Amino acid sequence: MKEWEKNIRRVVPYVPGEQPKLKNIIKLNTNENPYPPAPKVKDILQNMDTDELRLYPDPCAASLTSVIAKRYGLKESEVFVGVGSDDVLAMAFMTFFNSDKPIIFPDISYSFYSVWADLFRIPYVKAPLDENLCLVKEDYLKENGGIIFPNPNAPTAIAVEPDFIEDIVAKNQGSVVIVDEAYIDFGGRSALELTRKYDNLLVVQTFSKSRSMAGTRIGYAMGNEALIKALSDVKFSFNSYTMNRAALAVGVAAVEDEDYFQDNLKKVIATREWSKEKFVELGFTVTDSKANFLFVTHKNKAAKYIFETLKERGIFVRYFNIPRIDNYLRVTVGTDDEMKKMFSELKKIL
Amino acid sequence: MKEWEKNIRRVVPYVPGEQPKLKNIIKLNTNENPYPPAPKVKDILQNMDTDELRLYPDPCAASLTSVIAKRYGLKESEVFVGVGSDDVLAMAFMTFFNSDKPIIFPDISYSFYSVWADLFRIPYVKAPLDENLCLVKEDYLKENGGIIFPNPNAPTAIAVEPDFIEDIVAKNQGSVVIVDEAYIDFGGRSALELTRKYDNLLVVQTFSKSRSMAGTRIGYAMGNEALIKALSDVKFSFNSYTMNRAALAVGVAAVEDEDYFQDNLKKVIATREWSKEKFVELGFTVTDSKANFLFVTHKNKAAKYIFETLKERGIFVRYFNIPRIDNYLRVTVGTDDEMKKMFSELKKIL
Repeated sequence: MKEWEKNIRRVVPYVPGEQPKLKNIIKLNTNENPYPPAPKVKDILQNMDTDELRLYPDPCAASLTSVIAKRYGLKESEVFVGVGSDDVLAMAFMTFFNSDKPIIFPDISYSFYSVWADLFRIPYVKAPLDENLCLVKEDYLKENGGIIFPNPNAPTAIAVEPDFIEDIVAKNQGSVVIVDEAYIDFGGRSALELTRKYDNLLVVQTFSKSRSMAGTRIGYAMGNEALIKALSDVKFSFNSYTMNRAALAVGVAAVEDEDYFQDNLKKVIATREWSKEKFVELGFTVTDSKANFLFVTHKNKAAKYIFETLKERGIFVRYFNIPRIDNYLRVTVGTDDEMKKMFSELKKIL
Repeated sequence: MKEWEKNIRRVVPYVPGEQPKLKNIIKLNTNENPYPPAPKVKDILQNMDTDELRLYPDPCAASLTSVIAKRYGLKESEVFVGVGSDDVLAMAFMTFFNSDKPIIFPDISYSFYSVWADLFRIPYVKAPLDENLCLVKEDYLKENGGIIFPNPNAPTAIAVEPDFIEDIVAKNQGSVVIVDEAYIDFGGRSALELTRKYDNLLVVQTFSKSRSMAGTRIGYAMGNEALIKALSDVKFSFNSYTMNRAALAVGVAAVEDEDYFQDNLKKVIATREWSKEKFVELGFTVTDSKANFLFVTHKNKAAKYIFETLKERGIFVRYFNIPRIDNYLRVTVGTDDEMKKMFSELKKIL
């Protein structure tokens, strides 16, 4: 090993879901929204003054933070935006999790949490989900340097109620508690209201799922001014200009079309609900999903086999080779048509 | 102070140049290119399939890395892209500068270097420029945990030759040496060729200046595969998808129009050269700029006074209240017309 190689930060990166380049596949593996972004997004890009791309964007991303603040009844100083919720969460780990005590997150959860902890050398403990794949509240009441969990959890799709979260936040006022609400719009109840009462709660959401904009990379955090200021200071110590001009412009357009947003959610939720029934008919056990995906396991057929066989037939779902959930599949809610095709192939396989 | 506030990472953020919202100003304060991006950028955005924004972008940004690789005669595995060169440099600091020994950079230089070092708790020493504002080679031959400097340096605009860099790289084979070439296309000689010979050299460039795309946030690093792999692993441990779909698409278009790029450079350089003479005529001392800005000091009038007076008249240049250079101004090269207007106001002030 060369001398300079000894000082490299060694990491085991997170592996995102496959982005196959094949055409004519059914892609139900990365929890993207099956419907396009709000119609105004197209107009905005088509009419953008591209000459202005020569100029830096607004480092404060004020146009976008202000529409988000308005949408959620907050002040601009209570909103932070980043390059997808991964960027927001990475910055939050760097900003808030600097204790010698371990942070706590669920053992079965978004697998990026342990990657960030390793990257920033943050000690952590994983709290095991119970036998029903639910969070166990007591595990989050132990001494800690911070807490993070998704609500609904991923990949289980199971949500907790605000009371559950309030208890954790109230009993951990010495730590920052981050609730990762990437999937909250699909039927869960947001903890946002609790940020009015507790200054140690940060709520993180994203445009990638419910706003159909995974390709634009917008995530945001909401919380009291002191939290947002700290996060913002770290961001300005990392990269002044994270949000490009196109992202800012289309992000604003997406938030402004509330009707489109609500209709989109209704469609995804309706498809999810009949898909649940369909899975059950086919002999699957399905968790009570409040997300845009379903977490399923079959009574006879191995998940890995189903995953591989569907893939051969051009249908991509997600399989995690992880203890306890290695017989489950995570299936994104697609269009009705996509789901029907998947069920038709599933029937043949089973 | 609340308990959770004790574990916040405390930082003093970098302050970017002002982005005034006023119309009809002459903006020569953030080294943006006065000319628009390549014409194809407009077509690309206008014809973008916005429905695809619902899908994640390619996490490897392969379309963009491959055109950059081709343009510079490299393999794709020798190129890394990020959200502006600030993002690339932040990732590089995190990846390579993990020694207990201090990193070295010039005392008068891009002021973000010390911000990143503080953010990541990297020890550093600042090597003083000599009385002509030039880098002193010997300062970079001391024991260190890494080296970084811009070429041309900012805000001095003075470039060094590849021989100078080779000596530093060759004598520091235990450290990673980063040459920050944000301004290289305006007349400096790139160290890129040296990456073929030395595996510890990373060259960082940007689309923000010479490609007129500050608003799109694209920067890139070039070096041997081991360096790029390490950088890429850290990036994938931070945020899988940093480059959004619009940025990838317009970035490719910008690189593909080499003629436009070369014409743009010629225009900026021509304006810079006559502006130099003009400054001298007005009693300024001007460094030998190889960048898209000029670093000037006046024999009688204080820089701060000129800065403030120009600002009142709607002309924004950059003033740094920093020892040794607090009587200098950094003036971005604008269009001929913008420069003429600035000189006309300057004449009245002096």
